[in-house]
Amino acid sequence: MTNIDRRTAALMTLLSPLAAGAAGAQTASARLKPAPMAPPMNHAMPGNSGDGIHWIGDEQIAMLMYPGMTVMDLIGPQSMFASMMGAKVMLVAKTLEPVTSDAGVTITPHATFDTCSRDLTVLFAPGGTDGTISAARDPATIAFIADRGARARYVTSVCSGSLIRGKAGLLKGYKATSHWSCRNALAGFGAIPTDARVVRDRNRITGAGVTSGLDFGPTMIAELRDRTYAECTQLMSEYDPQPPFNAGTLKTARPEVKAPMIELIAGFRKQAEALAANG
Amino acid sequence: MTNIDRRTAALMTLLSPLAAGAAGAQTASARLKPAPMAPPMNHAMPGNSGDGIHWIGDEQIAMLMYPGMTVMDLIGPQSMFASMMGAKVMLVAKTLEPVTSDAGVTITPHATFDTCSRDLTVLFAPGGTDGTISAARDPATIAFIADRGARARYVTSVCSGSLIRGKAGLLKGYKATSHWSCRNALAGFGAIPTDARVVRDRNRITGAGVTSGLDFGPTMIAELRDRTYAECTQLMSEYDPQPPFNAGTLKTARPEVKAPMIELIAGFRKQAEALAANG
Repeated sequence: MTNIDRRTAALMTLLSPLAAGAAGAQTASARLKPAPMAPPMNHAMPGNSGDGIHWIGDEQIAMLMYPGMTVMDLIGPQSMFASMMGAKVMLVAKTLEPVTSDAGVTITPHATFDTCSRDLTVLFAPGGTDGTISAARDPATIAFIADRGARARYVTSVCSGSLIRGKAGLLKGYKATSHWSCRNALAGFGAIPTDARVVRDRNRITGAGVTSGLDFGPTMIAELRDRTYAECTQLMSEYDPQPPFNAGTLKTARPEVKAPMIELIAGFRKQAEALAANG
Repeated sequence: MTNIDRRTAALMTLLSPLAAGAAGAQTASARLKPAPMAPPMNHAMPGNSGDGIHWIGDEQIAMLMYPGMTVMDLIGPQSMFASMMGAKVMLVAKTLEPVTSDAGVTITPHATFDTCSRDLTVLFAPGGTDGTISAARDPATIAFIADRGARARYVTSVCSGSLIRGKAGLLKGYKATSHWSCRNALAGFGAIPTDARVVRDRNRITGAGVTSGLDFGPTMIAELRDRTYAECTQLMSEYDPQPPFNAGTLKTARPEVKAPMIELIAGFRKQAEALAANG
């Protein structure tokens, strides 16, 4: 059999019990907090094939949370990481107190900086605006990111989460991106600002603004598992984007959209530059 | 001045204080729970222009939450609704107890079925798998959806959230979509299953699976405000999708991806069909 034939055969064997709703179909998140159902639509995925193809992994993924984070930065990747059978996907904050996002969504952390695994497969930081600046100026947050980032297999972020990684010294000499409003500010941390949806430089992987997490997600799954697994996640998430307008970047937005948004975000851009200028 | 000139002038006037970080830049969600910063990246938007262009609205948007929901279905649209200055975006559940998603994300509701506004601009339901079937079989949830849906200006959902609306009798005679695994099941509710990313039939608007919420969001903002506002939200969310693979639909996924995922979801498909068959 070809590799693909063997993989498909392995999947089919594995899927029979899952499709029948059998017990034992534990998702990553179900390990943290048992969910009342199996299989969840976008994260129940095939398990270990038994023939050397590692459909089940044991990744330790820590996703930072802080007050004022942009929750979409977090949930895009989280919903895809959670599809990786056997992975442990932890939402980590300074304390176990629920954390409120910039858009008023309050989420309960799974772990604290102290209880989070010390050796991570993936360290992830979401962005935001004022909340992100505050997080990047918080010594405990930066100590956590610097410590876990020094040993993590992949050090990642979406949107202005790259500012937190930059402040922790994890972008020096690396290509990186961010939300369009603060991408250039990354140069202040010694990073090489790079205009792309997802930027990889060795083990540093960054997504652009907010919704780029949905492109970052499958990229990471292909890296951690393989392309077929990533495509399975894409199909279950029905990620077939069809934006009704073409205003997602400064290159495509109409002037009457672009000008006021640049003005709106100017204050944040200045804060990001000031943060980076101090290293 | 042309309309666009006037709008831009109004925006620029409004943005000066916002860009300077002045107080009073209240977001929709900040009204529910004051956030510690202004303006948040993807939801601080220009306010009332004073010249007849209604940049500030007063929409009442209720987004259902239930155990086992797919949180990405919820957060995609929520992050965009929250950009609408003056809108009230409520996460509503049976009680104020935090609700855990199928992927282990626990979110605190803003309101209950009893305290939620009675007359809504938008009623929204997210999807999931077993959790969605349970919600659709829960008399209190269906009574809430049927009651608010009867008067709401727009009755909406993403992914298998359409099953809940169907069960509440809100899709009879309407075109609608859902996650690919249960779109055809909608026929059991008297709906007309329609294969499109976002389907509109009069005041019923449905998105396809999970990530379609990011296409549904700008569509709704253009409907509730105008196209320029929707494009501003798209730019701030940097919604310029570039999926690394082309596996987001049954039409494009490779056979070795499609076949096992169809098998994986077969149990849920049968549950959805059984739910719909009973009306």
